Amino acid sequence: MESRAKTALGIDFGTESVRALLVDLHGTERGSAVVRYSHGQIIDELPTDPGKKLPADFALQHPQDWMDSATQAVRAAVDKSGRAASDIIGIGVDFTSCTMLPTFADGRPLCLSEQFAKRPLAWPKLWKHHGAKAQADRMNAVAHSRDEAFLNRYGGTISLEWFFPKVLETIENDAETATAAEVWLEAGDWFVWQLVGGAAAELPRSTCQAGYKALWSAEEGFPKPGFFEAVHPQLAEVVAKKMPGRFVAPGQLAGHLTEAMAQALGLKPGTPVSAAVIDAHAGVPGAGAAEAGVLVMVLGTSSCHMLNAEQFRPVQGVAGIVKDGILPGYYGYETGQAAVGDAFDWLRATLGHENHNKLAGEAATLPPGADGVRSIDWMNGCRTPLMNGSLTGSFTGLKLRHGAAHLYRALLEGSAFGLRWIVETMRNGGLPVNGFVATGGLPHHNPLIVQIYADVLGEPISVHPCQYGPALGAAILGALAAGHDVNGFASSASVIESMAGTRDDNPKRRSRVYHPNALHRQAFQTAYDDYRQLTQIFAERVSV
Amino acid sequence: MESRAKTALGIDFGTESVRALLVDLHGTERGSAVVRYSHGQIIDELPTDPGKKLPADFALQHPQDWMDSATQAVRAAVDKSGRAASDIIGIGVDFTSCTMLPTFADGRPLCLSEQFAKRPLAWPKLWKHHGAKAQADRMNAVAHSRDEAFLNRYGGTISLEWFFPKVLETIENDAETATAAEVWLEAGDWFVWQLVGGAAAELPRSTCQAGYKALWSAEEGFPKPGFFEAVHPQLAEVVAKKMPGRFVAPGQLAGHLTEAMAQALGLKPGTPVSAAVIDAHAGVPGAGAAEAGVLVMVLGTSSCHMLNAEQFRPVQGVAGIVKDGILPGYYGYETGQAAVGDAFDWLRATLGHENHNKLAGEAATLPPGADGVRSIDWMNGCRTPLMNGSLTGSFTGLKLRHGAAHLYRALLEGSAFGLRWIVETMRNGGLPVNGFVATGGLPHHNPLIVQIYADVLGEPISVHPCQYGPALGAAILGALAAGHDVNGFASSASVIESMAGTRDDNPKRRSRVYHPNALHRQAFQTAYDDYRQLTQIFAERVSV
Repeated sequence: MESRAKTALGIDFGTESVRALLVDLHGTERGSAVVRYSHGQIIDELPTDPGKKLPADFALQHPQDWMDSATQAVRAAVDKSGRAASDIIGIGVDFTSCTMLPTFADGRPLCLSEQFAKRPLAWPKLWKHHGAKAQADRMNAVAHSRDEAFLNRYGGTISLEWFFPKVLETIENDAETATAAEVWLEAGDWFVWQLVGGAAAELPRSTCQAGYKALWSAEEGFPKPGFFEAVHPQLAEVVAKKMPGRFVAPGQLAGHLTEAMAQALGLKPGTPVSAAVIDAHAGVPGAGAAEAGVLVMVLGTSSCHMLNAEQFRPVQGVAGIVKDGILPGYYGYETGQAAVGDAFDWLRATLGHENHNKLAGEAATLPPGADGVRSIDWMNGCRTPLMNGSLTGSFTGLKLRHGAAHLYRALLEGSAFGLRWIVETMRNGGLPVNGFVATGGLPHHNPLIVQIYADVLGEPISVHPCQYGPALGAAILGALAAGHDVNGFASSASVIESMAGTRDDNPKRRSRVYHPNALHRQAFQTAYDDYRQLTQIFAERVSV
Repeated sequence: MESRAKTALGIDFGTESVRALLVDLHGTERGSAVVRYSHGQIIDELPTDPGKKLPADFALQHPQDWMDSATQAVRAAVDKSGRAASDIIGIGVDFTSCTMLPTFADGRPLCLSEQFAKRPLAWPKLWKHHGAKAQADRMNAVAHSRDEAFLNRYGGTISLEWFFPKVLETIENDAETATAAEVWLEAGDWFVWQLVGGAAAELPRSTCQAGYKALWSAEEGFPKPGFFEAVHPQLAEVVAKKMPGRFVAPGQLAGHLTEAMAQALGLKPGTPVSAAVIDAHAGVPGAGAAEAGVLVMVLGTSSCHMLNAEQFRPVQGVAGIVKDGILPGYYGYETGQAAVGDAFDWLRATLGHENHNKLAGEAATLPPGADGVRSIDWMNGCRTPLMNGSLTGSFTGLKLRHGAAHLYRALLEGSAFGLRWIVETMRNGGLPVNGFVATGGLPHHNPLIVQIYADVLGEPISVHPCQYGPALGAAILGALAAGHDVNGFASSASVIESMAGTRDDNPKRRSRVYHPNALHRQAFQTAYDDYRQLTQIFAERVSV
């Protein structure tokens, strides 16, 4: 195959839709398509049981949606690209996480069987499903009482959104489903398994998903059986018997596309497939970041801030530290803010605005510090560094002279202060942070937030030109899975650089750099000191 | 004159307009008219000096507006009443306070002379003018360092809105105006002086305005010269030489209407005129409250909560304690909340609503405690009990599931918690509070706030049927000034009862009583405990 024809396919499973992206090995987009899931997020009632309301904290998905939407999106993207299926040298898959499900031994989801179709806890639980709070609380209590060393890799806290609390929720609340389940796995792993086929014992599990969401590490594996036993005997049994497979890192070969799936997707049988990766983490190669010390900020509904480092440092409130978890050869640190784009959008709606334009325009004319209005951006709890989902947001410093734009600006600034706190936490913990790259949809739609982030950090921020970094990152992992003999590059770093590196001489691949405004430094320092004082106050209050 | 024909006239000077009300001695309204001031609040530029911006904290008024608008309003009200000028047995005047001005010895305002027309500090300063912060700070510092006993009557603090800080502001910032000024006085006293004429040495000054806004008491007079000397030598000189007149209590005779003013207003020369009263304080007789222990809540843009008591108790944060200040024979306690109706309206506008209907309707369906959202109602500072105008408001406990109605309900509840705190402060200070009467425009327009107040206090609240209590109160004081020989009643209390007492058998004079909902008690107790914890936190923070 001629070098210019070689193309990689990224399949990016988001919360509402899937995107397929074809991109050549020089980083030129060749075709892209987005298809929404028919059932979207299942939060009110099961499609199989209309009228029966789900609990308020449930968020489920339909596995058939993933398959159907991906099929449509891939076919449309290939069509648009004008490329032949044989030009595709590899396939990468990123998925929201921890989105997980129970299946039978052959990979069939329990919820697609007649027997379990009306049982909510047999359905895939979406990453944001919050039904496992009691289970997470107990797992945390047990882990702390046993002083489990693995806690160091998770900032001291197991999130209710992670894998084992979600398994335990089904064990405790739906014994029949728990008994019938033969395999528990991440949705990303499930989809890759569907692509490459094979027995459950050989199913390729992502080291990234296992590392960040299932307490796994390459050196230590899962927590010891004694820990799971102490939480619940059946949980120990799940780990021992119902989590078959082998661990494969993103960018490594999970297997080759089966005849059946090739036919369904309109692709070539035998195409190499990478192990799955968490969607946000795919944003790191997708932003062209191939080195340690660059904070890649995937800004969207919520935000993930990811850093690769040479060192292992158990920093407080880091959501996860996984060796080779983001890029091979580094410890990958995941930190995050629980409400970013959705907090801005919540405020927009609360203030009765149709869109962000007017608010952002007015907010941009206000002085740094929002004339004394402060906001704590915890409308969905605090992820890093406090790891406490029950904390709440606030606006303080309000006077009658303030208006909607002050609240809006204060919230953007609060988000920036939250980011600065995370960066300081990492630096104080001994991790070098030398550069800042923003990716995701938000920085393209809301330039004001990037400028405020840069001003508050006092550092330049590069916004990567690709608006769908995770899909590009997945395609890069697909190219890596094909191997260097096929992709023709000498190293992973050079594939990333070729496919996602920025180019000043190409308008489509040029970073937009936001430089900090030195004149705003002192005003933001004062406001940040306020913010930190307020976070301390609110973190210590029991209620509200 | 036949008893049924006897009528009293109240002239009620508000912030934006003046109302004239004719009411007979049995409490039946005979005619009413409202006329706005041509220049309203002067906050951007002087009408004499267009294009020259006033400082941000300035709020001035035009004395000609008072005269012109009152003339129109009185003539219109008399016209509508069908009464003859000779039926009017007395005139009462209430005015915003401390609204004050410098005049020449003949009463002509400095600002109406060509020489001073373009000097902002020669103009009347409206009650809400905040240009005298530095002066108030220094007066407080001096008073505390000298341990001045008069502070006990003012909750320990001299407000920047009061008389002497405003005088001192002109002394310090406009020496020429200060030198030229021959008389400094309240606008209410100025208007009464215009009505009754006479030399400056005899001008009737209101004990109510002097007591609450100028540190005066019947027993002790003004603070000793040593205090004023220590603040500024010229201030001592003002007190000694530029504040001529005699003190007259509201409801006592200030004088009789001059020929000239009778002609201008279309009234009868010689009609008795009462000394002026502060607008909010006129609301107490206007609400039919003639006894001790009834908290009269005048709810409007801001709120005054007034109480008459047998006892003198130096309660923290009471804005003023004046013997005979509200009703003869009692110590009158004035407390207040700095932002009530205007905070609700600020929030409505910030949330992008045209009016309060939808917000109030939705807020009414939310549970007590607003689903965890809390608001501190300090958007214009805290009056009672903290007496700190630089404190600010807040919303806390915010989650993505909350909407505009949660913020709105939280603010109403925060206002109610502020009221409960005031009531508890007075009771803990040894003052009986046995009943609650609400008056002013707000309780008629926003019944939800009264219900929430009743629920939070755990006490029934009667809303007085008269929508303009201060004007009615002023008319009552006019009837009292005529003397009992003319008004035909044996006591002040019986005049108040006849003219403003409520009548269950008369729909126009029936109180609406809001009873506390016992089911909400616990939820509001929890929320109130939160509020108090938050007030303590925010009161202790230096900034924001």
